[in-house]
Amino acid sequence: MSSNNRAKLVTREFQKEDTIVKIGDLEIGGDNCVIIGGPCAIESKDQIITSAKLVKAAGGHILRGGAYKPRTSPYDFQGLEEEGLKYMLLAKEITGLKIITEVIDVDSLKICEKYVDILQIGARNMQNFSLLKHIGKSNLPVVLKRGLSATIEEWLNAAEYIISEGNKNIILCERGIRTYETSTRNTLDISAVPVIKSKSHLPIIVDPSHAVGIREFVTPLSKAAVAVGAHGIMVEMHPNPDVALSDGKQSLSGGEFANLCQEISKLLKD
Amino acid sequence: MSSNNRAKLVTREFQKEDTIVKIGDLEIGGDNCVIIGGPCAIESKDQIITSAKLVKAAGGHILRGGAYKPRTSPYDFQGLEEEGLKYMLLAKEITGLKIITEVIDVDSLKICEKYVDILQIGARNMQNFSLLKHIGKSNLPVVLKRGLSATIEEWLNAAEYIISEGNKNIILCERGIRTYETSTRNTLDISAVPVIKSKSHLPIIVDPSHAVGIREFVTPLSKAAVAVGAHGIMVEMHPNPDVALSDGKQSLSGGEFANLCQEISKLLKD
Amino acid sequence: MSSNNRAKLVTREFQKEDTIVKIGDLEIGGDNCVIIGGPCAIESKDQIITSAKLVKAAGGHILRGGAYKPRTSPYDFQGLEEEGLKYMLLAKEITGLKIITEVIDVDSLKICEKYVDILQIGARNMQNFSLLKHIGKSNLPVVLKRGLSATIEEWLNAAEYIISEGNKNIILCERGIRTYETSTRNTLDISAVPVIKSKSHLPIIVDPSHAVGIREFVTPLSKAAVAVGAHGIMVEMHPNPDVALSDGKQSLSGGEFANLCQEISKLLKD
Amino acid sequence: MSSNNRAKLVTREFQKEDTIVKIGDLEIGGDNCVIIGGPCAIESKDQIITSAKLVKAAGGHILRGGAYKPRTSPYDFQGLEEEGLKYMLLAKEITGLKIITEVIDVDSLKICEKYVDILQIGARNMQNFSLLKHIGKSNLPVVLKRGLSATIEEWLNAAEYIISEGNKNIILCERGIRTYETSTRNTLDISAVPVIKSKSHLPIIVDPSHAVGIREFVTPLSKAAVAVGAHGIMVEMHPNPDVALSDGKQSLSGGEFANLCQEISKLLKD
Repeated sequence: MSSNNRAKLVTREFQKEDTIVKIGDLEIGGDNCVIIGGPCAIESKDQIITSAKLVKAAGGHILRGGAYKPRTSPYDFQGLEEEGLKYMLLAKEITGLKIITEVIDVDSLKICEKYVDILQIGARNMQNFSLLKHIGKSNLPVVLKRGLSATIEEWLNAAEYIISEGNKNIILCERGIRTYETSTRNTLDISAVPVIKSKSHLPIIVDPSHAVGIREFVTPLSKAAVAVGAHGIMVEMHPNPDVALSDGKQSLSGGEFANLCQEISKLLKD
Repeated sequence: MSSNNRAKLVTREFQKEDTIVKIGDLEIGGDNCVIIGGPCAIESKDQIITSAKLVKAAGGHILRGGAYKPRTSPYDFQGLEEEGLKYMLLAKEITGLKIITEVIDVDSLKICEKYVDILQIGARNMQNFSLLKHIGKSNLPVVLKRGLSATIEEWLNAAEYIISEGNKNIILCERGIRTYETSTRNTLDISAVPVIKSKSHLPIIVDPSHAVGIREFVTPLSKAAVAVGAHGIMVEMHPNPDVALSDGKQSLSGGEFANLCQEISKLLKD
Repeated sequence: MSSNNRAKLVTREFQKEDTIVKIGDLEIGGDNCVIIGGPCAIESKDQIITSAKLVKAAGGHILRGGAYKPRTSPYDFQGLEEEGLKYMLLAKEITGLKIITEVIDVDSLKICEKYVDILQIGARNMQNFSLLKHIGKSNLPVVLKRGLSATIEEWLNAAEYIISEGNKNIILCERGIRTYETSTRNTLDISAVPVIKSKSHLPIIVDPSHAVGIREFVTPLSKAAVAVGAHGIMVEMHPNPDVALSDGKQSLSGGEFANLCQEISKLLKD
Repeated sequence: MSSNNRAKLVTREFQKEDTIVKIGDLEIGGDNCVIIGGPCAIESKDQIITSAKLVKAAGGHILRGGAYKPRTSPYDFQGLEEEGLKYMLLAKEITGLKIITEVIDVDSLKICEKYVDILQIGARNMQNFSLLKHIGKSNLPVVLKRGLSATIEEWLNAAEYIISEGNKNIILCERGIRTYETSTRNTLDISAVPVIKSKSHLPIIVDPSHAVGIREFVTPLSKAAVAVGAHGIMVEMHPNPDVALSDGKQSLSGGEFANLCQEISKLLKD
């Protein structure tokens, strides 16, 4: 479909105009700014439905929630799997939000495709090329998170694995890179947004929660993401962050999330 | 003046309210946002005066310009030294801008103190503790740039070297850290702004030019810096970037700088 | 099989004595030092058989060769797949060497298990937890390469994913980490060897070829690896490096490989 | 003395044969391997004399000890200054060892020149170009430590600042670089040794103590340094590491140092 001599499919050289990813009536890319919110992991029916209502009330567009969790240790909570997806679908029916979840292998991909609107490839699987090729054959849009130490070029090459199989609906997601600095979980590479927009026609969003890992810094970083030109943000929100099964320290409460949405809305008015 | 057991002088623990650095009628810190512009190096009387007029016309507050240049190679242009400072003083008299320049050792410190309003410690000298102690005895405010691979804690400790000698007028400046990513010159650690504001009462500004190293990305990153809460930005601008003796690739033209100032001004209206 | 409160299975705390991985009459771990050599990719029957003969003649113990290649770009050579494994098996029959190859997903795992003595998980899949769990159910030993920016703790946790499913025959492989330094491909983290030996009972080998990426530095780094206490080295060797389909720049010729084996042998005599 | 178009003075291109730095009858460079040992800081007359005797008895060649300490915090022990140098000179007279100490500015340089055989520029001052130029005018040899995040090219440029002023007696010292890995203090970049030997004629030694920061790993890393081809090692040793005023955690005891020297001696016999 392309060779080393021709422009890669993800590049501006190949396609000048911005790609707009459409999910029903929702558009990601161009001049839009989408807000994705929700818990790291789906923990129960109540938790995900309450989360969805909070996201919806605050003005968010998409509900996130993990059903298959790639955890550093095999002994950590690994997710509710299909049961969680059923709860998430329920939350979608109640609120009208679109839903996104992470897939971690071909088996989870097959199952997730039946429930969600958008698939997600996590940072750890950014160069799981075998999985990327399968995603490339899916009909669903995909958020491709940047690997923890991936260069921008490697990240675009990972996207090329997907697009070269036919799936053009790719949303890139900057989520912090690994550096020597330890006062934040990772280092948000905010420059990646304009660099990607210069090199590629694909939309790019920012996940400040995983990048910084500390609740109080999520709102200022979200504002920076919007100011720098990101097509959206993906933020962890939990109805009760202090009891979250994972990533509670970086999750906003419902009230904090609503406040964040207001701040973003003010920025976007300009 | 302090011991390991007591809160360090730069911390919020020691001083709750924001430090406001006053330079005549200009205030840095608190809710203000200051714009510093000018060339990497002072190259001639004309160049620095033209630069000053462009900065002034665009609405900038402070003129930057290097007279003593710490260059990676000993064979690169090392600056006009005192002659350059005289030109800079002239530019100040014409425009009314405050002026800032980098000092690289005790000798240059003694000379610079006679001409400028603000001293600057560059990234390479952030842990030149001997120089920091001398700066601590100066009556002039100082911009302390973050070292290329300094942790936030080391940076604050460097500031402590200055403040512990009596000089409280310190402005921290995030200017990008060294990471594996090569598509930008360094990686702007935008998270450093809220982290510093949480840990310290000192003002913090951002230098997007050295961080990213590519002209077209300076404006979006400046907007991100302001949105995240920085107390100012320091931007390289050259009347004719294509013939600059150093850092031309990352310098804005006068027109681009004026446009940047307008964008910042819009952001600040909210 | 274990909980967060109990010592993880890979730790010295759980098992004091060194794990010795046995592959027929070959032992990896303890006081042994094993030499693995061969091309990055299996390119043809001739190429892999010639390689095997060179490895054998030089005194190497195991033949490496990739049949499934996880390449940064989807348009690069992706490997000969099962056909390549058949050639590799032939090379084994001729020389008596053990053989190792990389698996990239469940499909390739099923096929590779039929041909090789040792499986390999590459750096990009170190946190492909789904694949690790499948490997954990295999009867074959596995070389687990360190992820490009994995901490030692994350690496041991990845090994825990395998061992917790029952497969205890894990050999860790340090292959360079990503840093800011660009004069080598990656930065060989030689300290990882004593750190791992202190924390874990699993054997650890070093891959200097991928770490440094430049032929002339492979031999000194191999000597460093042996001197620091590694249980073996894995080195890229190609009968004709200049025409290699991948990684030729870092591959030794047959003669250079023989010389390397002699140098190692001298070091081991002490 | 040189221009951008000519080969820099530190390069192999400029000088093919190895530089041998001579300090009386001691030679550093070529095929020699020198052992430098001693405490991080000179703490008392007794401590430095005892240290010197231990270094001498073990077979070491040079005594190290800091009189001017560039500490991260201004409230940490800053060294005994000239008083310490007097003790060190006494230790030299008793043992016959050469002595080396770090200079941190022009003032300390002037004083140190009166006492020691070799000057040292620490990692934090590697790009203190003003100090480097002064060192370039000294008659004493200098050990130039690599900056914490300096590229090899920047490091050689720092050496060029010295050599271009006339001082050719430069010994480079790899002492670990800053990476994301936290299980060691820094990451020893062992590859820097062959890279430097390929690019430059200057001798290069390794400081495993600062690189790894943990006592038990100093000996294996020293062996790796010698095996990879370093011209020497610089190791922290303290008569009583547990009460050391700085860096005790990474200091060997006298007995451990003697054992290390024996291991190195075995390696060098080959």
